[in-house]
Amino acid sequence: MKHVLSSEQYTRESLDELFDLADKIRNDPKKYSHKLDDKIIAIMFYEPSTRTRLSFETAALKLGAKIITTENAAEFSSAAKGETIQDTVKVIAGYADAMVIRHKSDTSAMDAASVNKIPILNAGAGKGEHPTQSLLDMYTIKEKKGRLDNLKVAILGDLLYGRTIHSLLKLLSLYNNIEIYGLSKEAFSLPQEYIDMLKSKGIEYKKCSSFDELPKDLDVIYHTRIQAERFEGDFGKEEFIINKEVLNRFSENTILMHPLPRVIEISTDVDDDPRACYFEQAHNGLFIRMALLLQVLDKA
Amino acid sequence: MKHVLSSEQYTRESLDELFDLADKIRNDPKKYSHKLDDKIIAIMFYEPSTRTRLSFETAALKLGAKIITTENAAEFSSAAKGETIQDTVKVIAGYADAMVIRHKSDTSAMDAASVNKIPILNAGAGKGEHPTQSLLDMYTIKEKKGRLDNLKVAILGDLLYGRTIHSLLKLLSLYNNIEIYGLSKEAFSLPQEYIDMLKSKGIEYKKCSSFDELPKDLDVIYHTRIQAERFEGDFGKEEFIINKEVLNRFSENTILMHPLPRVIEISTDVDDDPRACYFEQAHNGLFIRMALLLQVLDKA
Amino acid sequence: MKHVLSSEQYTRESLDELFDLADKIRNDPKKYSHKLDDKIIAIMFYEPSTRTRLSFETAALKLGAKIITTENAAEFSSAAKGETIQDTVKVIAGYADAMVIRHKSDTSAMDAASVNKIPILNAGAGKGEHPTQSLLDMYTIKEKKGRLDNLKVAILGDLLYGRTIHSLLKLLSLYNNIEIYGLSKEAFSLPQEYIDMLKSKGIEYKKCSSFDELPKDLDVIYHTRIQAERFEGDFGKEEFIINKEVLNRFSENTILMHPLPRVIEISTDVDDDPRACYFEQAHNGLFIRMALLLQVLDKA
Repeated sequence: MKHVLSSEQYTRESLDELFDLADKIRNDPKKYSHKLDDKIIAIMFYEPSTRTRLSFETAALKLGAKIITTENAAEFSSAAKGETIQDTVKVIAGYADAMVIRHKSDTSAMDAASVNKIPILNAGAGKGEHPTQSLLDMYTIKEKKGRLDNLKVAILGDLLYGRTIHSLLKLLSLYNNIEIYGLSKEAFSLPQEYIDMLKSKGIEYKKCSSFDELPKDLDVIYHTRIQAERFEGDFGKEEFIINKEVLNRFSENTILMHPLPRVIEISTDVDDDPRACYFEQAHNGLFIRMALLLQVLDKA
Repeated sequence: MKHVLSSEQYTRESLDELFDLADKIRNDPKKYSHKLDDKIIAIMFYEPSTRTRLSFETAALKLGAKIITTENAAEFSSAAKGETIQDTVKVIAGYADAMVIRHKSDTSAMDAASVNKIPILNAGAGKGEHPTQSLLDMYTIKEKKGRLDNLKVAILGDLLYGRTIHSLLKLLSLYNNIEIYGLSKEAFSLPQEYIDMLKSKGIEYKKCSSFDELPKDLDVIYHTRIQAERFEGDFGKEEFIINKEVLNRFSENTILMHPLPRVIEISTDVDDDPRACYFEQAHNGLFIRMALLLQVLDKA
Repeated sequence: MKHVLSSEQYTRESLDELFDLADKIRNDPKKYSHKLDDKIIAIMFYEPSTRTRLSFETAALKLGAKIITTENAAEFSSAAKGETIQDTVKVIAGYADAMVIRHKSDTSAMDAASVNKIPILNAGAGKGEHPTQSLLDMYTIKEKKGRLDNLKVAILGDLLYGRTIHSLLKLLSLYNNIEIYGLSKEAFSLPQEYIDMLKSKGIEYKKCSSFDELPKDLDVIYHTRIQAERFEGDFGKEEFIINKEVLNRFSENTILMHPLPRVIEISTDVDDDPRACYFEQAHNGLFIRMALLLQVLDKA
């Protein structure tokens, strides 16, 4: 039984395989449009995330699958009556061929997968893993830069809590000759454990305090939203904002990424710059999620 | 890029074209049942309106399209994190071929359409436009009366805030020899701007204070619900209630319309009267919305 | 017009017919996968019940139907504006070919069916009927035991409020030579009206106060969750818990059922026991609901 639980389950080889399949789907979507014709995919969201949900649903529909879905299972479902995730999966396995789950608990997807009756795809588990986001991020970098080795990557915004940042670092650390630069408000600095993880893979983490300290020939600038909803107290707004002037300090080959939604950290005046690829990045999520659904259902 | 944003974008000619297409769909739905087979329609409701949502969803499904949908995007989605409608549309455009939007903001549909990546259909924008309602109203009048010129129309209920009333008046004003009679509690009188708009098109507005002042040979009585949820203070209940006795004051050719839901303003004892056509009117919304989806996706 | 409103509408003959159809679907699902290809099923849930909703949706989808659905119509819909269920059904009948309804009101499904424009399927009406649950319970007993006459059945848990228990008793009372044993905390005893109903059908109800009083050769143990959310005050937890040790007091032919979700009343250590059939029971709901949809739409 195949599951998609963590970005840590991926290797260079399995990433290649996934990205090749995503490329094939992108290039010939018609060919894949009936691959899951007889399948039903259960989309179980215990906490709301409209974007991720709609992306998974579109992926399933574009493969010919049918979907059953719940926007807010925590409030509405048996969970409120005290049912375990394992019991829920055992019931859903009677209806559906695979289950996409988003849940507040860090171990939710693992718990669901332990039942091992249907493939589980983790669409975000608490503060922990959100593997499909980091997979689409890596896919976008590969598509745009043509490689995943030999990259200079700057990470900005919420380096402290940013789940997408943390997963991205794990996947980048699989590759050779990676340089990571961090630029954030002090209160949102990268936790030491990630600095140590990078070091253990031979990657030095360079903490910066201004745009000036970032190399001009960065390959990737990856910005993120400060998740104000996670804090008590006021840590103020992002101060490292990318606007036209800032972006023009960098090479014409530097790409600008963001997991979205953005608030103020990237100014709309760079949206039309060819280096800005956050909307394309979001769109790439579709091909990655289609590829993952095919893989776990052995229809690749 | 075609959008459906406002009833004001329609002319006599474009209404004819729309109503002809709706007629064709009504007469031969099978012929249209696969027109949108490869399409995905995003149904983004930022405020709840189950009826309008289900009507659009049914319209899309009956054309062969697939749907991705959110019942309450405001609470659940990236909007809560501060994302603009424009950014949301740019992301959704990566998944879907057209987007139906309902939102509290009067300018929401215009804002969405400004992105111009996929067709936008306005399913209700704040206190402003709800064009598909007025289009189905006009379609129903044309179907029932056989014409849109030379009509005597009475409007009742909430003339002050009633969005459907206001849009209906705009569309009626495109036609010749229209007479409008208004009957409501004083507190719910038609705003002066609409009286002036009618006058500018050569239509005199006749404010009435009792059923006796309405002509017996009215073509259309259009009643609406007093939207108590919009007021502070108690303006009491509707006093101009249409029941069997009241309806029988009018011609056998007078049709009785209502956008629904109704509360007390039309008594259920007239539901079986052949002049009562509010449920048929609701059903007509399906054909209009199917026609609009075909038009914006160039599949008419 | 056929409706599914109450377990009381079923006879031995109509149950046989239903269960035969469910068996046929289970044995050859492909054969039925396009039976409702042109149909739209409206799933109108006025109170949340994710499991029942997803089961009905899956049933519709596996027959080729399309679905329009609302998770929480009470909060979002015209109902909040004061519309009657009858008016809602008249509008929905313009979109859909059948309607599944769950509602707080005990008479909701009857009210909806009174319109008689489209078939209504009751998915739970207040404290009253939830007929599809009792139908799938009976189907499971028949499947597992091979008969519905000559059964010794123990009911446990919430005998006071347990809707599924009450409906099950009504259906069991159609059969011959049934013995019913009840075991629950005193505060959750079976109401006298059900004891009287059983007596009127010649069935003696045996109230027990410990596992020791239950016969070893029970055919069915049917446990239920104490619905703490229905009480004020603290009646404590279930004290008659089925674990491995308890289950092993009974025959190898005793089956253990539960409508789910369970909390503590059945220990997970019996999940792998072949006698434990609650997940299979839930899965059976799919075949029963598929069969019911086919019956009401005359596609059986």
